[in-house]
Amino acid sequence: MSAIAVKEVKERVIADNDAVAKEVRDDLRSKGVFLVNLMASPGAGKTTTLVRTINALKDRYRIGVMEADVDSTVDAETIEKTGAKVIQLHTGGSCHMDADMTKRGLDEMGYDDLDVVFLENVGNLVCPAEFDVGAAKRVMILSVPEGHDKPLKYPLMFTVSDCLLINKIDAAAVFDFDMEKLSSAVGDLNRDMPIFPVSSLNGDGYAEWIAWLTKEIESWRE
Amino acid sequence: MSAIAVKEVKERVIADNDAVAKEVRDDLRSKGVFLVNLMASPGAGKTTTLVRTINALKDRYRIGVMEADVDSTVDAETIEKTGAKVIQLHTGGSCHMDADMTKRGLDEMGYDDLDVVFLENVGNLVCPAEFDVGAAKRVMILSVPEGHDKPLKYPLMFTVSDCLLINKIDAAAVFDFDMEKLSSAVGDLNRDMPIFPVSSLNGDGYAEWIAWLTKEIESWRE
Repeated sequence: MSAIAVKEVKERVIADNDAVAKEVRDDLRSKGVFLVNLMASPGAGKTTTLVRTINALKDRYRIGVMEADVDSTVDAETIEKTGAKVIQLHTGGSCHMDADMTKRGLDEMGYDDLDVVFLENVGNLVCPAEFDVGAAKRVMILSVPEGHDKPLKYPLMFTVSDCLLINKIDAAAVFDFDMEKLSSAVGDLNRDMPIFPVSSLNGDGYAEWIAWLTKEIESWRE
Repeated sequence: MSAIAVKEVKERVIADNDAVAKEVRDDLRSKGVFLVNLMASPGAGKTTTLVRTINALKDRYRIGVMEADVDSTVDAETIEKTGAKVIQLHTGGSCHMDADMTKRGLDEMGYDDLDVVFLENVGNLVCPAEFDVGAAKRVMILSVPEGHDKPLKYPLMFTVSDCLLINKIDAAAVFDFDMEKLSSAVGDLNRDMPIFPVSSLNGDGYAEWIAWLTKEIESWRE
């Protein structure tokens, strides 16, 4: 029996997602809350990355996490152990979050007492890329086992993201992952996006990623 | 410049997907064509699995492949080298195929000269599970790096599939993948679904998977 709060946030027909996203972003900025929209395939390591990132930030910031999933609360239970405030959002079958769903999630969780909120979006490289949820930054994770050809196949996700983590570099020896091909393909879509190779398992590369994230949080809160 | 045929199959509003799916399936059965709806996350190894599977079957059957993607023709180019008939379907941003899109793809490719057609669905564990495309069988691939908790998070995909391939078992030593936990969680959703651990990289486990598939094809064509 889990004690995790669960909120149903089924998608509604919203005429203008971008207008709601702007409303969410403006509200968060006025309150100094930095929202990260974290997107990736299933199994790319979103939750493991969140746990390590929260542990790196939690002495400095008050952190909340919204776990969006079609079903289950397994990720929220993992996150709860970090001490972060956490809510599980169930999307009613929808394969992405939109701004209205995000707003309802934020209202349910409460965020006046938070500095940073992570939205772990549904595991998917297609639909989440199409919806601005009102985040300060969109962060994408691609894991080494998925392969370096993914920018060719999911160009929108790589185009709209503000930062790319290449996770599971600890497994690089087993997979035929070409970091130069990846960087070149990403560069064609989104030239200035920072790319951080990391291992959320052992922490390799985290200094650079956490430094980038902290700088963005501070700049948002100025 | 690729010579791959590309067909745009944007999603249309179809009142009754199941009715179209039945029409597709009945037509294929009357012509003795076995359609496989192959579903998985991005990077689970759908294309590598298709190449090895085609090579195992092509002396016995005439094979066609429909590669559904949001963008690019990289997978179709890989498949073409096997000698299979291949068409690239672009979904116009949609994260899944439905029965009507499948029908248009089949018509464009032509299938009177084929025994087996594989539809490589868009990489996604959510939406493709919701749409019967008219296939004889739905085959799902889960790869070891994605983790054994996926049935809890994407229950519908595991419920509607007829066969589950666990791919990348060659990388099992690097990942904390518990096959017993996976089997138990799958069993709760879909008790009789066969599970084949395979390596599409080195061919481990292929004898069992190809035997199952051949039996299903033969039974369909009787």
